[in-house]
Order: sequence, then C-alpha cells, then structure tokens
Amino acid sequence: MDSLATRHFYQRYIDCLNNRSLGDLDQFVSQTVIYNQNQISLKDYQEMLTQNFRDIPDLYFHVDLLLTQENEIACRLNFSCTPVTVFMGIPVHGQKVSFSEHVFYRLAGNKISEVWSLIDKDAIRDQIKGEFLF
Amino acid sequence: MDSLATRHFYQRYIDCLNNRSLGDLDQFVSQTVIYNQNQISLKDYQEMLTQNFRDIPDLYFHVDLLLTQENEIACRLNFSCTPVTVFMGIPVHGQKVSFSEHVFYRLAGNKISEVWSLIDKDAIRDQIKGEFLF
Repeated sequence: MDSLATRHFYQRYIDCLNNRSLGDLDQFVSQTVIYNQNQISLKDYQEMLTQNFRDIPDLYFHVDLLLTQENEIACRLNFSCTPVTVFMGIPVHGQKVSFSEHVFYRLAGNKISEVWSLIDKDAIRDQIKGEFLF
Repeated sequence: MDSLATRHFYQRYIDCLNNRSLGDLDQFVSQTVIYNQNQISLKDYQEMLTQNFRDIPDLYFHVDLLLTQENEIACRLNFSCTPVTVFMGIPVHGQKVSFSEHVFYRLAGNKISEVWSLIDKDAIRDQIKGEFLF
C-alpha cells in the first residue's frame, strides 16, 4: 500500500474499534503481532480490546495526529472516557479522564504486525490525584 | 519541504542535539514553540536541553522509527543513558536506564513550532524499582 492507502486502512481500523466490530479485526491485524516487544496472537489482541471496552464502556478512539508511510503508521490518539473501576493499575472508579496515546505500527502483508504504544498514564494519575483535593 | 526534505531536516536536528550544538538550535526551532500544550520560547527550549545534558551527560538520541510528512514528524527515540541524580522526578542516581520517547512535531516556516512528547517514565521507574530488589 502507498501512504494514502495506508492512511485509509488505518481510518477503517479505527472505525472497526469505535464500532466494536471486533469480529472484523482479522482484516486489519496479523495472526501474530509483536506488541510492545511481546509476541501475542490475534486472539490475545482481540481479548485485550474486549477487556478495554469492558473496563471503559464509553471508550472512543479519536485520531488527533496521523502520519503514514508505505508500511508504517504513527498516531496520536486522544481519549476522554470513564473507566468504571481500575484502568492500567490506576483506580479511576467512574471518574471522567482525558489522556493521549502515542502509537507506532508496522504492517506486514497489509496488516498490523508490530505495535509500539505509549499511554500517558501520568496524566490519568494526575487527574485522579486532583479528585482527592476536593 | 516535502516529506524527504523534512526527514533530512529532522536528522540534522538530531545531529545538532547529539553534537551538543545548541547554538545552532535556532536553525531548527521557532522563536515560540507549543511544547506539550505550553507555550515556551526558543530560549526555554534551549535551557530545557541544557538541563537534560546536565542531568544526563551521556544522553544520546537514537532514532528508532521515523515518519515524516510535509510539515509533520513522528519519531520513536530510544535512550540508554545514566542520569546522574533525579530525572523527571525519578531518583535514578547514576543507574543506567533504557527507555523510549514517542514524539510528534509540527513545523511552521520549516522550523519546529509544536511538540507532543510522551516519555516512558514507567519503564524508568520499573528499572529503578528492580535495583532495590538486589
């Protein structure tokens, strides 16, 4: 795919997540993925997302910045959502939080095969801390 | 600049940092920059880097993944370095740590005018915690 086709591919992938169409995930994600340096299966990837949607029913992926090349994607995603209990070890418990994820993807055979994700957990911690001030 | 020229621009910017040529920073950075949503001056930007090099004398910017478009850059930077005392609030005190930064830039007038940076502080914290186990 050229960089424009990769851009459209990523936008369809994000739509798939936002529509909770996880049955279609195999159109976008390889059978095996290296996720933050760990090898996981498509099923693990699907379960991770299912867990995210369980933890955060109003989870919505908002693309803020998007760069694409032939087989590489970089995206800044913004979230404004309400984790119901504990999210990534942080006891959010129904507070609305806003944070970003900076994520890189590599494609192989036109599907996501490698992911490097960083989530701004400190932003979430700061918002939770703020809660205790009131 | 087209995406290839932007790529070369960024590589020269990284060389400028790794060579400690902070006097040349005005070739790469605008007089005013929005850095993680805060407006700072070129002088502030320069002082931030000077402080980083003071805190981490062996700081070296290693470009791991790089995507460029006309006026946008996304980079995963890897670091393996030895902060001498406290780095970003974490008491590293001379331990060698490895971590990544996922950073996006927007250019205006062929210079960096906006930066969104996320540093994997949890990776640093985990390596420091590990130290206490021994």
